[in-house]
Amino acid sequence: MANPENLTLLTDLYQLTMAQGYFREQRMGEASFSLFIRSYPPNRGYFVAAGLKDVLEYLQTLSFDQDALDYLAAQKLFSEDFLHYLGALKFTGDVWAIPEGRIFFKDEPVLEVSAPIIEAQLIETFVINQIHLQSIIATKAARCVHAAGGRPVVDFALRRAHGTDAGMKVARASYLAGFAGTSNVRAGQQCGMPLVGTMAHSFIMSFEREIDAFRAYVSSFPNTSILLIDTYDALTGAHNAVRVAKEMAGRGEKLIGVRIDSGDLAEQARTVRQILDEANLREVKIIGSGGLDEYDLSEFSAANVPFDSYGVGTKMGVSADAPWADISYKLVEYNHRPVLKLSTGKWSWPGRKQVFRYHDGAGQFDRDVLGQRDEHLAGEALLTEFMHDGKMRARYPSLIESRKVFAEDFARLPPDVKAIRDPDHYTVEFSATLNALHQDVIRTLQGN
Amino acid sequence: MANPENLTLLTDLYQLTMAQGYFREQRMGEASFSLFIRSYPPNRGYFVAAGLKDVLEYLQTLSFDQDALDYLAAQKLFSEDFLHYLGALKFTGDVWAIPEGRIFFKDEPVLEVSAPIIEAQLIETFVINQIHLQSIIATKAARCVHAAGGRPVVDFALRRAHGTDAGMKVARASYLAGFAGTSNVRAGQQCGMPLVGTMAHSFIMSFEREIDAFRAYVSSFPNTSILLIDTYDALTGAHNAVRVAKEMAGRGEKLIGVRIDSGDLAEQARTVRQILDEANLREVKIIGSGGLDEYDLSEFSAANVPFDSYGVGTKMGVSADAPWADISYKLVEYNHRPVLKLSTGKWSWPGRKQVFRYHDGAGQFDRDVLGQRDEHLAGEALLTEFMHDGKMRARYPSLIESRKVFAEDFARLPPDVKAIRDPDHYTVEFSATLNALHQDVIRTLQGN
Repeated sequence: MANPENLTLLTDLYQLTMAQGYFREQRMGEASFSLFIRSYPPNRGYFVAAGLKDVLEYLQTLSFDQDALDYLAAQKLFSEDFLHYLGALKFTGDVWAIPEGRIFFKDEPVLEVSAPIIEAQLIETFVINQIHLQSIIATKAARCVHAAGGRPVVDFALRRAHGTDAGMKVARASYLAGFAGTSNVRAGQQCGMPLVGTMAHSFIMSFEREIDAFRAYVSSFPNTSILLIDTYDALTGAHNAVRVAKEMAGRGEKLIGVRIDSGDLAEQARTVRQILDEANLREVKIIGSGGLDEYDLSEFSAANVPFDSYGVGTKMGVSADAPWADISYKLVEYNHRPVLKLSTGKWSWPGRKQVFRYHDGAGQFDRDVLGQRDEHLAGEALLTEFMHDGKMRARYPSLIESRKVFAEDFARLPPDVKAIRDPDHYTVEFSATLNALHQDVIRTLQGN
Repeated sequence: MANPENLTLLTDLYQLTMAQGYFREQRMGEASFSLFIRSYPPNRGYFVAAGLKDVLEYLQTLSFDQDALDYLAAQKLFSEDFLHYLGALKFTGDVWAIPEGRIFFKDEPVLEVSAPIIEAQLIETFVINQIHLQSIIATKAARCVHAAGGRPVVDFALRRAHGTDAGMKVARASYLAGFAGTSNVRAGQQCGMPLVGTMAHSFIMSFEREIDAFRAYVSSFPNTSILLIDTYDALTGAHNAVRVAKEMAGRGEKLIGVRIDSGDLAEQARTVRQILDEANLREVKIIGSGGLDEYDLSEFSAANVPFDSYGVGTKMGVSADAPWADISYKLVEYNHRPVLKLSTGKWSWPGRKQVFRYHDGAGQFDRDVLGQRDEHLAGEALLTEFMHDGKMRARYPSLIESRKVFAEDFARLPPDVKAIRDPDHYTVEFSATLNALHQDVIRTLQGN
């Protein structure tokens, strides 16, 4: 049986066939690869960096176990000496990256790896897999938080996220980007974020009368209950919730809120607010859910719909309007020779790089400059060395710390770049030195 | 440390709070839940059932370990007697399902669970998570295979699938729906499907000249090489591939093919085919890749673009045009009382059900009838009992067997329902008995 936790084989076959190609030619030189997003998906003007933690953990444990080697040998593609080499392989390279929670933009390397080319190549698939998912979700979640205009947003995405790993990463990435909590119990256990939950329609339906279901639930949770009121009709449900809230008050208990999950949410929220207010239950909150995304939340915010918080699920958890981004991991240097790709629409920038960020007088982001790694520009350097010679350079920040990093960055992002629709494109320039190198490499290639 | 393989906590908090509500009220009656998709995403007219294997494995191992119980206790939400009850909980119910690989339609239960209500409720999140992902991917993959018109299609999606679990499930679900293989080495190892791979642009770029990279690669893989020819320019690349193919022929070796991954794929394929044919390399295949989906493949098929096979990645792996479906797991019966939900736009059909499929004289699917579980209609009954009292009823089919089931079903699906754009909607009727029950339950609810 293969070890279910060993992710080393979670790679594309060609990474291994290319590795054998390098091995056979004894091309073991150092390569640098750059991970970046080439263009903005619709309505996106920024990205939130996420997923680095999983990449660093993976790199520290990378190794081919005997099951993996046996499986590869059975493919009749690999030589015995190459498999022997793989059996001893560890990741020994350097990793520079933009820390989790920071805002980055298209063309900017969110991560750069320098390592013997076989190591740097082999890890491509997993590195993209994790940074891509987590960054598109953190970005989508940041948009939801922004659109909610200060009302707490929680993650209900686990059921329709794409698989178990996505369910966990969506909970973490959305919390990183300002969500208040998650319904995902395992994510709460493993990442320490607050758990949230209400009740499902099935609970109501299992009782013959809605009010009996409400009474049963609050007797178990006298101070944390949120009642789902739309199983049959939200207004009848609101009146039943009022009755139960009054009974609770008589016992010294307190109903936290009601949830509406279907129908015309804005209209129902207004009527339910009126019902609650007329019953003197102004402190009972209204939670909205049911297919919500940042476009809905920004409409509710603009129209002052009286929701107090939101549960956001599927559309955030799969980044429904932009379920993928054009992210690439490109060779930028081999054996100290800068390289690039000329394929139509897929060109890349050569050499190891650094991103320099400039702020305006008020502390807001003004522009970024993409330069060579060893340039000394005045802007704040975003790429940090997290791993050197295969070893972690420093303690990895906690999720709470990275969440704070995000909040600080987001506060300094210009409002027009944050817009939910048709955001402005933030300025990313290329340094004179990088431009010159780019031209040099193109001339060399065209001379071949 | 939590056991990383124990998925029992991979659930929504409200499943556990509701469970405590049931426990406290001693509502331990049998509940039946029905899993179905309420509507077709754009351009979909059918679904391919997938994900059941993971659900059955999960149900057989469901249990709260001490770490889980400790974590729950720390939430200060749960009573000691309830946690003690959870500590002994196993899944003891029945599972009826449409077998993996079979075609199903909207409103049809792809799975029904009958179990003590706490068990049946607790598993909702994981059951949806797996069946949703795998069925939308198998459906997307079936569309790609259909659009390719007989040319083999392989899975390149791992890097941009949503996380590690999705990467594995995409490889399996696409193979189930007729893909010829995957680049995902771990999926090959764990599920046994054929591995495929070519080379990446980085391999070419690490050499100073493209032809040196080609020569190095084929020396390692003299009979399985597919050369990527568009790193700098696809036509130059094709001429370099011709030179290498001739050198190989001189050594008694054989170039399998070339791959084009960027630019105007159709135009380049035609020119490259000409270059290869003029060099008498008619047997060298051309593989297309780079952002392809079923819409591209159907255009290529219609225009007879000379691709021999395709690598399909991101857009299949995230089901880009339909990354989620409106799938629900609804209570349909509690303690032998059929129930339903009246929420706006979210109604459900009461009671345990069966799907009966009718074929026309030529063996094609004619229509389905959704009836009560114990009805005896003439159509083929699709839901099969896979688990009884928590135990598997029979050997689970192999992936190869389920793949054959898919191929047989797909061959019998009417062509207009398979259309890539604006498919016909297949007829799903509701039996007279089910309609009468539905009316009865609504009357009872409205009488309350």
